[in-house]
Amino acid sequence: MDNRTVIFHQRPVGALRVEDFRVENRPRPVPQAGELLLQTLYLSMDPYLVLLMQGADRYGDNAPGNPMRSRAVSRVLASQDPAFAAGDVVLGFAPWAEFNAAKAADMIKLDPDLVPLPAYLGAVGHSGITAWAGIIDVAQAKAGETVVVSAASGAVGSVAGQIARILGCKVVGIAGGADKVRHVVDELKFDACIDYKQPGWVERLYAAVPQGIDVYFENVGGAMFDAVLGKLNKYSRIALCGLISGYQQKEPVTLHNFKALMEKTVTLRGFSVYDYTARRDEIIGQLAGWVNDGRLAHHETITHGIENAPTAMVAMLAGNKLGKQLIEV
Amino acid sequence: MDNRTVIFHQRPVGALRVEDFRVENRPRPVPQAGELLLQTLYLSMDPYLVLLMQGADRYGDNAPGNPMRSRAVSRVLASQDPAFAAGDVVLGFAPWAEFNAAKAADMIKLDPDLVPLPAYLGAVGHSGITAWAGIIDVAQAKAGETVVVSAASGAVGSVAGQIARILGCKVVGIAGGADKVRHVVDELKFDACIDYKQPGWVERLYAAVPQGIDVYFENVGGAMFDAVLGKLNKYSRIALCGLISGYQQKEPVTLHNFKALMEKTVTLRGFSVYDYTARRDEIIGQLAGWVNDGRLAHHETITHGIENAPTAMVAMLAGNKLGKQLIEV
Repeated sequence: MDNRTVIFHQRPVGALRVEDFRVENRPRPVPQAGELLLQTLYLSMDPYLVLLMQGADRYGDNAPGNPMRSRAVSRVLASQDPAFAAGDVVLGFAPWAEFNAAKAADMIKLDPDLVPLPAYLGAVGHSGITAWAGIIDVAQAKAGETVVVSAASGAVGSVAGQIARILGCKVVGIAGGADKVRHVVDELKFDACIDYKQPGWVERLYAAVPQGIDVYFENVGGAMFDAVLGKLNKYSRIALCGLISGYQQKEPVTLHNFKALMEKTVTLRGFSVYDYTARRDEIIGQLAGWVNDGRLAHHETITHGIENAPTAMVAMLAGNKLGKQLIEV
Repeated sequence: MDNRTVIFHQRPVGALRVEDFRVENRPRPVPQAGELLLQTLYLSMDPYLVLLMQGADRYGDNAPGNPMRSRAVSRVLASQDPAFAAGDVVLGFAPWAEFNAAKAADMIKLDPDLVPLPAYLGAVGHSGITAWAGIIDVAQAKAGETVVVSAASGAVGSVAGQIARILGCKVVGIAGGADKVRHVVDELKFDACIDYKQPGWVERLYAAVPQGIDVYFENVGGAMFDAVLGKLNKYSRIALCGLISGYQQKEPVTLHNFKALMEKTVTLRGFSVYDYTARRDEIIGQLAGWVNDGRLAHHETITHGIENAPTAMVAMLAGNKLGKQLIEV
């Protein structure tokens, strides 16, 4: 009755390392009344998990010695709740373990025929809702506007840019490396993508937005933000989503173009996907519709084997993947 | 027939100096059809005029050799337009000159019995509209919230904080020097005011906002902005008005607390008073009402003599005044 489990071993010092995790064999859980016995199918690897490991209070009280936890798609093996049956597929938070017992009330039943299961952790899951919220609700992108998306090949940025394209915007991505840039233009159909690892990238970005920038979907933080400030149009909007680069560094952000926020009467809004919980079904329905009519491509980088989750997590933070990083357990 | 006039002599290099102006005697103008002959009563000294002198395209095409121009309250000496008569008092842009001829269509007739004339260039004028827009429309301050206002003794900040107080907010100002701090607390009735020229001011600011900051009326830029970021509450709002310190410096803004914009899901909006032109009468009416029922104090620093306008302008930018800086011509 093995149950391999990834444990939060120690708080990371500086950048996250594989040594900050350990893998243990723990007992297989026995579900109680109102619970489900679940077999984990896919685990979501998310940047915010590092904040939790660093002890940021906003993200709960995880402490070293406990299993890692994240969103997961799981199969019901046994149910103590009349609303679920063995064979159902559910979405919810789970330990990084092969099996777990979870309260039925915390799980959302998924339709396995609507979209492929991995998409529920990416383009038709939390990443997709985040992208939808940022482009449609926070930034209110309109057809004909120019939208710039940072981390354009990532789980959220890839969907954000595609939604903007579906809305009829001109979409320019920013990504690091030739493979990602090619992916963003060829597969995701952005109008252009700028490689920020190449010298002169700011000039190329500016050349790619001759009409200026109306919407910026900020997904990184720091130097990219400052560059975009320099080309913002009047009444432009910035959706401030994650700040991946900021998660692992403590350096201050230096902005040469800060004045643009005032001079261009810009609206900048930080937002959290948790503010969109009540609209989940509406948003998921729209995203799934776009997936099924072929307008929204979803890409997952899937690593096999729960024991490889620490390596995948570190690689994701270093930016070595396309789309959503998942573990197939 | 003298008409003393302050000329924009040369583009400022670095901080504005008195030498960047010159005073000349120019001919008294003769009004044409549709024009008014005006005698200037009060001239408004505004920080944005420096941007114009620096050649910022947003603020028009003034060039050295032309008279300085700003908002003014003037008396009609002769009218070529049936809507105005000699003796009327009007508001509009005017050269820094004792007399000028202006298109009647560009002038707004004022009610000299509603509020004292200097207030039309301050608390019941553009500064007041700016403050109203920032606190009420942009930041949407609510009763019971904590509002922080920078440049709290200045033309805009002094009104912004008072409006927040009228709304039922707790209001904390930031100002430089004991005289200004005393003025803000004793005359403007802010709940507290922090002297940013004293060491430890950030800690004192934080101690003055035990419930955190819900609204920040940003009127300065730079270090103050960063300090406030560190105490923002979730869903807080920042109204980004002028950036006085930024007008005269080119240094980048370094933010140690930039992440707060995302982590606290903050909304930051740059705004321009020009977006509120259509609501002028409504806003002016509300401001005048507050002045007349004694809830909104208006303070002007009035310098006498048009030849002293350059000195007053330089002093205003250095922060050496309370409330709105005017010239009584």
